[in-house]
Amino acid sequence: MIKKVVVTGANGFIGRYCLPLLVQNGYEVHAISTTRQMESPGIIWHQINLFDFSVVQNLFAQLKPQYVLHLAWYTEHGKFWRSTHNLKWVQASLELAQIFAQQGGKKFVAAGTCAEYEWSGDACQEDKTPLIPSTLYGCAKNSLRAIFENFFAQEKIEFCWGRIFYPYGPGEKGDRLIPALIRAFLSGQPAKCTAGDQLRDFLFIEDVAGIFVALLESKCTGAINIGSGEVIAVKDVCRIIAESLNASHLLQLGAIPNPSHDTIKLVADVKKLKQELQWSPQISLEAGLKHTIAWWQNEVYAF
Amino acid sequence: MIKKVVVTGANGFIGRYCLPLLVQNGYEVHAISTTRQMESPGIIWHQINLFDFSVVQNLFAQLKPQYVLHLAWYTEHGKFWRSTHNLKWVQASLELAQIFAQQGGKKFVAAGTCAEYEWSGDACQEDKTPLIPSTLYGCAKNSLRAIFENFFAQEKIEFCWGRIFYPYGPGEKGDRLIPALIRAFLSGQPAKCTAGDQLRDFLFIEDVAGIFVALLESKCTGAINIGSGEVIAVKDVCRIIAESLNASHLLQLGAIPNPSHDTIKLVADVKKLKQELQWSPQISLEAGLKHTIAWWQNEVYAF
Repeated sequence: MIKKVVVTGANGFIGRYCLPLLVQNGYEVHAISTTRQMESPGIIWHQINLFDFSVVQNLFAQLKPQYVLHLAWYTEHGKFWRSTHNLKWVQASLELAQIFAQQGGKKFVAAGTCAEYEWSGDACQEDKTPLIPSTLYGCAKNSLRAIFENFFAQEKIEFCWGRIFYPYGPGEKGDRLIPALIRAFLSGQPAKCTAGDQLRDFLFIEDVAGIFVALLESKCTGAINIGSGEVIAVKDVCRIIAESLNASHLLQLGAIPNPSHDTIKLVADVKKLKQELQWSPQISLEAGLKHTIAWWQNEVYAF
Repeated sequence: MIKKVVVTGANGFIGRYCLPLLVQNGYEVHAISTTRQMESPGIIWHQINLFDFSVVQNLFAQLKPQYVLHLAWYTEHGKFWRSTHNLKWVQASLELAQIFAQQGGKKFVAAGTCAEYEWSGDACQEDKTPLIPSTLYGCAKNSLRAIFENFFAQEKIEFCWGRIFYPYGPGEKGDRLIPALIRAFLSGQPAKCTAGDQLRDFLFIEDVAGIFVALLESKCTGAINIGSGEVIAVKDVCRIIAESLNASHLLQLGAIPNPSHDTIKLVADVKKLKQELQWSPQISLEAGLKHTIAWWQNEVYAF
């Protein structure tokens, strides 16, 4: 039987990297996006708005996909933490789950976030760190996950929830930290940053996408962290980028205050990831940043 | 300024008791129900389905109510614990909240449930007992509450969430425990029950409604238990009813097993309720059961 997967947010940062991997893994890939995309071998695009429930219903009734990879969400930089769009996306995601169940779906993999955890400072563990989100975004995702876990268990649908930490790489939106720095340095502009003492867990986008595709294939269920397991201070990431572009004189650490919802340490415990998927990062931070810088320099890449 | 309140689930068990109390408290009462209801002094009925979002939007744009009392949910006896309708009601409730906020609402009071708590056996405390629901119903309500708390705080709308334990009284659906017993005994039929060792917290419906209306007026925010604070074994409730109707020979305790999702003790800690509302029950269990039996005997009551 043909393995059919519907990918939401297919034209997003993570989605675009998942598509070729899914094709490689033998899926018939149905990619949903609100914007029109060119067909490419093995990928069938559907220009659909997930808020048009009857359209989604019709698509699923026609396709009867066994798999969903649900990556779509509101992600506008700086705004998504507190936006009421988070409520809309809970609504649309619940609808998607019900439609998938009605049409006989087998496995549902969706994007969660490190913002679901209480930001207590220790490396976040899936089944141990309290789920006390500090933001509406984290709260909406966490609440959705709780309902999904209960609903899919009842419906006998396998469910996996990848809690994403800090993905980066070519194609990331230009106003986010790493692209913003690279763009500033490339144009010879100073980059005003916080002190950069925050400890984070960055993972190259190809690794993130690889994990999501592996989750579809695996027997893993429930929440799982998607991070590198390696801790780095944001200022050190800034310095690597600045040095790579001979722009250390343009890096202004400490020029702006930390945002109010920020936390000093937000890193992933990746024991479950390693155990369930026998996974280790394919691309180091240094290599990933090099790729990313090259992409912005050339403004060309695989897609 | 006229105090306008929109009541959802207005024709439900709790809603019907709230309406006259709201009128007494000086509200212009807009009662929403999917079924057509007779107008009565001070109560304006709107025959609306809460899933018709544009209709709800239009009503709120026209009324601009300062208050919402959101009681509507899927409550079909025996089915509501696991029904996928719970997901639909999360969706509709999120929509309602957004519409209310857009139209300048001030205070939103909604019905939660004791099923949000981990059923650990101790009296449930709002801020202490873990929120680990055993059912899709409890999970959906708890997840909705979490989003509501975060969303309404952001929107500067007062929010209160009444966690209902075991309301009973005239008008309760006939297939639920207390009405089912009364009806059996009145018709001389045997009533097959579980052993009835479960410890519960029953509260007369007029008290429940009084608390919801008081919450609208109060400065109380967040989750609050709606119970009596008094513990009684279900078998003792059964016996009171049987004895009142001289039907002890018809009561068959232990004739059926406990449902699988059941818990031995589910009672409310009502410290917050007493403190915030200076509240104590108006009607004792004995008096409440007497009222209820009389209602079924006469099949007439205030509504």
